[in-house]
Amino acid sequence: MATTWKDFLDQTEKPDKFDEKSKEIIEFVKFQLRSKRNIVLVTSGGTTVPLESKTVRFLDNFSVGTRGALSTEYFLKRGYAVIFLTRNRGLRPFLRHVPKTNILDLLTITDNKDVKVKPEYEQKILKVLQTYQEIKNENLLLTVEFQTLSDYLQLLKACSFALQPAGNQAVLYLAAAVSDFYIPKDLMLETDKDLLISKALQAIDKYQHQIVIANLLETRKKEIFVVTKETQDCVSLSDADIKNGKEIEELIIDCLVERHSQFCSV
Amino acid sequence: MATTWKDFLDQTEKPDKFDEKSKEIIEFVKFQLRSKRNIVLVTSGGTTVPLESKTVRFLDNFSVGTRGALSTEYFLKRGYAVIFLTRNRGLRPFLRHVPKTNILDLLTITDNKDVKVKPEYEQKILKVLQTYQEIKNENLLLTVEFQTLSDYLQLLKACSFALQPAGNQAVLYLAAAVSDFYIPKDLMLETDKDLLISKALQAIDKYQHQIVIANLLETRKKEIFVVTKETQDCVSLSDADIKNGKEIEELIIDCLVERHSQFCSV
Repeated sequence: MATTWKDFLDQTEKPDKFDEKSKEIIEFVKFQLRSKRNIVLVTSGGTTVPLESKTVRFLDNFSVGTRGALSTEYFLKRGYAVIFLTRNRGLRPFLRHVPKTNILDLLTITDNKDVKVKPEYEQKILKVLQTYQEIKNENLLLTVEFQTLSDYLQLLKACSFALQPAGNQAVLYLAAAVSDFYIPKDLMLETDKDLLISKALQAIDKYQHQIVIANLLETRKKEIFVVTKETQDCVSLSDADIKNGKEIEELIIDCLVERHSQFCSV
Repeated sequence: MATTWKDFLDQTEKPDKFDEKSKEIIEFVKFQLRSKRNIVLVTSGGTTVPLESKTVRFLDNFSVGTRGALSTEYFLKRGYAVIFLTRNRGLRPFLRHVPKTNILDLLTITDNKDVKVKPEYEQKILKVLQTYQEIKNENLLLTVEFQTLSDYLQLLKACSFALQPAGNQAVLYLAAAVSDFYIPKDLMLETDKDLLISKALQAIDKYQHQIVIANLLETRKKEIFVVTKETQDCVSLSDADIKNGKEIEELIIDCLVERHSQFCSV
């Protein structure tokens, strides 16, 4: 059995195309540093743990990666470059603004055999696409996929090493729901409010996080706690906010961007 | 504990929108019977089994539903109407012909702000879209989604009851990978060739299937066995077939359509 994370990673197989992906991550970080941009690593979606060596069955997590995808959009809006480390079938940034999941239902054939977006979806998609293309053209978003827990950990390590030269220009925003079947770890998707803050504080102590965003499973879309060693701030959406389509991730990212900027100016 | 499948289903919660979905299925079957079409129920993708009542973690199966999605295309090609009972995030018929998974990467904005498919993808998508739209216009494909094992079983029952009036015009093609953590059931994704046929025969006996399509996990894309009580036929693709992009599902469906037609003419 592995006793340290180093042993664990040494004994664990590397994911497909690991070297290729690592190189891409390093190049992406270098590019951002040349343009003096802040960079955030956002991890997103649930990890799987295989039950067999020829894997047919595995343990999974209900997360589809909503928090990660939304947070990525808001970080981009605030001028950060984003490495989006995501579960292969997870939700992607901007895609939630696309009204149908089956692309074939969005398209129509014109009289001269062009394939176009159906008129009823065109305005909405035009808007998303403009934002998305700007991001791509400026090379502000790198998507890296994982499936299993060990893929995730290997790639998380690769990203962390790549981000080292960025110093305090880099933020690690770990929103992935890491399956806790395999490594001893507390499940942070708490259902008991009384335990929430104390568990967040334990996590800060144990994993040396600077900030934990804590939430209850059932209210995760409208109330979160920004927990540090010294402070615990509740951030929540009002009913009016929710009605107006405001998203809690916007408030989370606002709060983190402010703290990051304070941290860098110290 | 439930002792019969009836008890089991009575004690299991119905999936979201169950009544709505059941009604849609019944209407779809009626429509096909009026047009004297054969109907096949294709089940596809893996089922999940939740580990908690407020579900965060679950057991899953590696299946993404390739066999089900491909088989659906070939059944449609042979003139069948299809009820496609699929895992919510599973592969959809026709979508595998679409070159990129992120729709935003497929689209471009023209000078007069139309949103079009990029020229390099247009020919390929045009072809798929024509087929897809014909199928939709003629109302030949009904997609019904499940996630958990119990959703699957409830909807399978609903489909089976809806198909009763179709008599021998109906085929049940059960390609879903049903998680066998919960109900006592043999795992049919066999890795040992010697056991394959005997397990298929046991399944025929136990579940009263007329035909079992048996395959080994590792060769499932090029060799299958069509097993009945009396016969065991190997169907396989040659290396040349594989090179030419031929798919084993086409051979499976050809074989089943022929047997279905013989069965109906008896």
